[in-house]
Amino acid sequence: MIKNLKRRLLGSPIASALAHSERINKRRALAVFSSDALSSVAYATQEILLVLVLAGGAALSYSIPISGAIICLLFLVVVSYRQTIREYPNGGGAFSVTKENLGPSWGLVAGAALLIDYVLTVAVSVAAGVAALTSAFPSLFQYKITICAVAIGVLTIANLRGVRESATIFAFPTYGFIVGILSMLAIGTYKLYTGEFTHIDPPATEGLEPLTVFLLLHAFSSGCTAMTGVEAVANGVPVFQPPESKNASKTLIIMACLLTTMFFGITYLSHYHGIAPNEQETVLSQLARSIYGSTWPYYSIQILTMGILFLAANTSYAAFPRLGSLLAKDRYLPRQFASLGDRLVFSNGILILGVVSTGLIYLFDADTHALIPLYAVGVFLSFTLSQAGMLRHWERSRARGWIRHAIVSGIGMTVTAVVTTIILTTKFTDGAWLITIAVPALIILFRQVHHHYLSVGKQLSLVGVDPKSLPHELKHTVLLPISGVHRGVIEAMRYAQSIATDVRAVYVEIDKESTERFQQDWQRWGRGVPLVVLRSPYRSVVTPLLRYIDEVEDSNQDDMITVIIPEFVTAKWWQQFLHNQTALIIRAALLFKRNKVVTSVRYHLD
Amino acid sequence: MIKNLKRRLLGSPIASALAHSERINKRRALAVFSSDALSSVAYATQEILLVLVLAGGAALSYSIPISGAIICLLFLVVVSYRQTIREYPNGGGAFSVTKENLGPSWGLVAGAALLIDYVLTVAVSVAAGVAALTSAFPSLFQYKITICAVAIGVLTIANLRGVRESATIFAFPTYGFIVGILSMLAIGTYKLYTGEFTHIDPPATEGLEPLTVFLLLHAFSSGCTAMTGVEAVANGVPVFQPPESKNASKTLIIMACLLTTMFFGITYLSHYHGIAPNEQETVLSQLARSIYGSTWPYYSIQILTMGILFLAANTSYAAFPRLGSLLAKDRYLPRQFASLGDRLVFSNGILILGVVSTGLIYLFDADTHALIPLYAVGVFLSFTLSQAGMLRHWERSRARGWIRHAIVSGIGMTVTAVVTTIILTTKFTDGAWLITIAVPALIILFRQVHHHYLSVGKQLSLVGVDPKSLPHELKHTVLLPISGVHRGVIEAMRYAQSIATDVRAVYVEIDKESTERFQQDWQRWGRGVPLVVLRSPYRSVVTPLLRYIDEVEDSNQDDMITVIIPEFVTAKWWQQFLHNQTALIIRAALLFKRNKVVTSVRYHLD
Repeated sequence: MIKNLKRRLLGSPIASALAHSERINKRRALAVFSSDALSSVAYATQEILLVLVLAGGAALSYSIPISGAIICLLFLVVVSYRQTIREYPNGGGAFSVTKENLGPSWGLVAGAALLIDYVLTVAVSVAAGVAALTSAFPSLFQYKITICAVAIGVLTIANLRGVRESATIFAFPTYGFIVGILSMLAIGTYKLYTGEFTHIDPPATEGLEPLTVFLLLHAFSSGCTAMTGVEAVANGVPVFQPPESKNASKTLIIMACLLTTMFFGITYLSHYHGIAPNEQETVLSQLARSIYGSTWPYYSIQILTMGILFLAANTSYAAFPRLGSLLAKDRYLPRQFASLGDRLVFSNGILILGVVSTGLIYLFDADTHALIPLYAVGVFLSFTLSQAGMLRHWERSRARGWIRHAIVSGIGMTVTAVVTTIILTTKFTDGAWLITIAVPALIILFRQVHHHYLSVGKQLSLVGVDPKSLPHELKHTVLLPISGVHRGVIEAMRYAQSIATDVRAVYVEIDKESTERFQQDWQRWGRGVPLVVLRSPYRSVVTPLLRYIDEVEDSNQDDMITVIIPEFVTAKWWQQFLHNQTALIIRAALLFKRNKVVTSVRYHLD
Repeated sequence: MIKNLKRRLLGSPIASALAHSERINKRRALAVFSSDALSSVAYATQEILLVLVLAGGAALSYSIPISGAIICLLFLVVVSYRQTIREYPNGGGAFSVTKENLGPSWGLVAGAALLIDYVLTVAVSVAAGVAALTSAFPSLFQYKITICAVAIGVLTIANLRGVRESATIFAFPTYGFIVGILSMLAIGTYKLYTGEFTHIDPPATEGLEPLTVFLLLHAFSSGCTAMTGVEAVANGVPVFQPPESKNASKTLIIMACLLTTMFFGITYLSHYHGIAPNEQETVLSQLARSIYGSTWPYYSIQILTMGILFLAANTSYAAFPRLGSLLAKDRYLPRQFASLGDRLVFSNGILILGVVSTGLIYLFDADTHALIPLYAVGVFLSFTLSQAGMLRHWERSRARGWIRHAIVSGIGMTVTAVVTTIILTTKFTDGAWLITIAVPALIILFRQVHHHYLSVGKQLSLVGVDPKSLPHELKHTVLLPISGVHRGVIEAMRYAQSIATDVRAVYVEIDKESTERFQQDWQRWGRGVPLVVLRSPYRSVVTPLLRYIDEVEDSNQDDMITVIIPEFVTAKWWQQFLHNQTALIIRAALLFKRNKVVTSVRYHLD
């Protein structure tokens, strides 16, 4: 039944032989890999304004230069990433690049930062998507957490079905959003210049804080969330149709241009329409409403915004399990993350991502602004590491033009390192401190897992062992604990006699009379198996049995002891509770003892 | 560690040989068995007033005749129960008496009614006890649910330690309560007659309902909660020191006299002090406060009330597990309820009682008045059945004076039957309807369990079977699923070879190259065991294996197949998650198939 449900939800399994056909073209790739970056325009402007408004309404105009600075930063990173894509056609994620060039330790730092970043991408994007919805339909505001959880559930299932199908499902909203926002910006600008709208001054609220450099940097670092997701293309190079690098590089450039236009346009128009952030309605919704009024184009913008944000979350569903599998292949994560599921996707990574991001949604009450401070630290940390890795790469390779490339990477590295520091400093008390705990914690986890696998490998290794040196024969004693004679016991006894010659029935005496009655039964049914009677003054069945097992072990060194337990399989599951759970207790008690095997011989009841 | 904690909480195990010494004398018996009945004076008067006040303040004076009627009813039941105790020295609970005389079907009705009653005794008594506490210390009102849960937890642990120790712990509060209430009543009456208090009229509130016969009957049935617990002595006869019947009978009479005095005294004085029920403070607390003021005697009364109410809950901890064990011995409840635990108590019954009553406390928000309608139905139903059983008993035995005895039982039966009907009718919509569902539901459960045990007994029975007719030899195939060669596999292979001659290693091919590499390894390490390679186009390990097992089964009829799985035992529990859970999946998949045994050969890692 569970199997059936799984088939319904996820589709039939896909054979391994079909693996290569699961590639996507540029158009689809833009939908899958660029939505994260593009969708951040839905909240980046708002995050800048939310910081600036602390210094009063007049400070809001600083949003224009701050956006300019962020766009410069974006192009710096994009140029640097194009180099990476060309050099790493098999996937130039920050993890691989850092690991290969700066060594595994730095690779783990990048890996931890990215894993956290992907989880936050899902949480932030879904929360922002639902905020777009509740801005348009305020009556849904109270259900926001539930809507977020359902959205994550749908994304998880879609991704468990496989990458090509999810690209098909999600291609429409990306293009819808791009067209929607660009046309809205065009109409808004046109209306502004024809004088249909006059410049509205921002509300003249009093500032709660002075307009300091720290505040401006804080606003800048909030706006840097606009850049999250840029690295997704580099990670996903191998999924592109050949020529992979070229297609990926082109997709990256298109994405950056679209992002710049939309982000700057929204910030600019919001400023000229005098929009101030407010808790109930997003900045983008206010802008759309002031351009269109509450008409159908306004509602379309909101729905499209929600669509691309959910799609942005989907970017992580491509990136997170892929990175997880890389880490697992290097034995830094449990091996379950490395194996492809039924549908040729890394199912375990997808499931974990769904669960953890839903948890974050609950913890932070589905509030985008509360989640943002955790975000971006990881992204910029991995930008920095990736470019540091590239710098090292050029320095080592000394291929034609390496100096020019190294300069690009070096500038990129320096600038992103500075930005990382700014983000961490200005947002530390808002929640960024959590990241300073989470990254080291993940690294410790990676190391522990790695250490375990290495140690197991060493313990199990047969290198240098001569097959003939291993002992061939095994001595074997079988114990059969019983409390009476019935068909189940007869079955267990037959099994016991078939696997060993030294079989002993063990009976625990609770009261004398029953023992005598049992001994008579045994005369008749015991098939010549010797009977051991153990006293139990405290009525426990398990304790005397364990003591006897120890005795047997002490008398026969180097022996294997198998405990065979007659067990019932009832026709209905609840009936199982009507029988003693002795088998379970014995199994648990012997779990950590060597040379003991516990075998249940099941007797099936109707 | 768990074992150690258990010892600390519950004490060392008590040997079976010490069972007989766990008897209690009259003084201790009064503490254990009478506290339920006595403690009900803490809420019975209040329950009467809460109904009467619906017809306005003037109606409260009806509490006096209603209490009189309840006291008459009590003596009727006590006289009838003395007969039962004499006739059933081995425990004359409603269940045994009904079963023996009216047959097992009626016995189950009584059993179900009593089990429910015991659970409610715990819930009501603990809730009322905490209400006594919060009446004195209103700041604790908000924590009432937590306090209730802690109280039930303490009671559960105390009872898991054993009956003698709990009698010792609890003897003081019963006697303290008796002395406290009687002296308070004496002082209150004295002050009333010396004129220090004048008669205060009850508050002249308007009635919400007219004063109908139905309302009076409703008040009467609410007051009948005063009688709950009277049957506990009859149930517990075998725990008394010999002569059991005589001691139990005396205890019952003493209890009834104390109950009458206190119940009537409280009702009478409450009336003359013009006390009306209110949500924040119990009636008894108001009375004590009006007699003593907020001085230490008042606080003592409240603490003693709480003490005896917790002790009343304790009555059920003696009665519920005992009844559960009787039902389990008759195979109407899981056999786990029939066995004595480490400390010579029926541990499972005690635990279930603790859990279920805590659940009721949460569901009903620890509100005595909300729980009361569920109560008393079960008690009076079992009174009726028990006396009907006695009537039948006298009729059958025709011993000397049987007609006199039969008349007593007959009157008792008729009156309690009428009272049961009154309670059920007047309180049906308040919650008594739940009992009309719960009793049949429990009876269905009993019957299902019974049916299962009988059917299992029949299936397992060896009656009429000739030992020589059973086949002696068993054919055996051992399958060893492996994915590589390492020390764990070598161990499993040695074990496999020691239990059978037909051993086959099974390898599931995920990709061709690994298979070839593996086959080479097998040449060297395979110890001559034949290797079966299974193709798996969908990368599943388990599906091809299960298909192969079916094939083997089809080719060798009447064969036993043992699947041996090399499993790791890691040094730390969390490391277990780092290994594939294939063993678990195979075990689950084969659970419901016949003639399959799954054996894990564990390899211990450091």
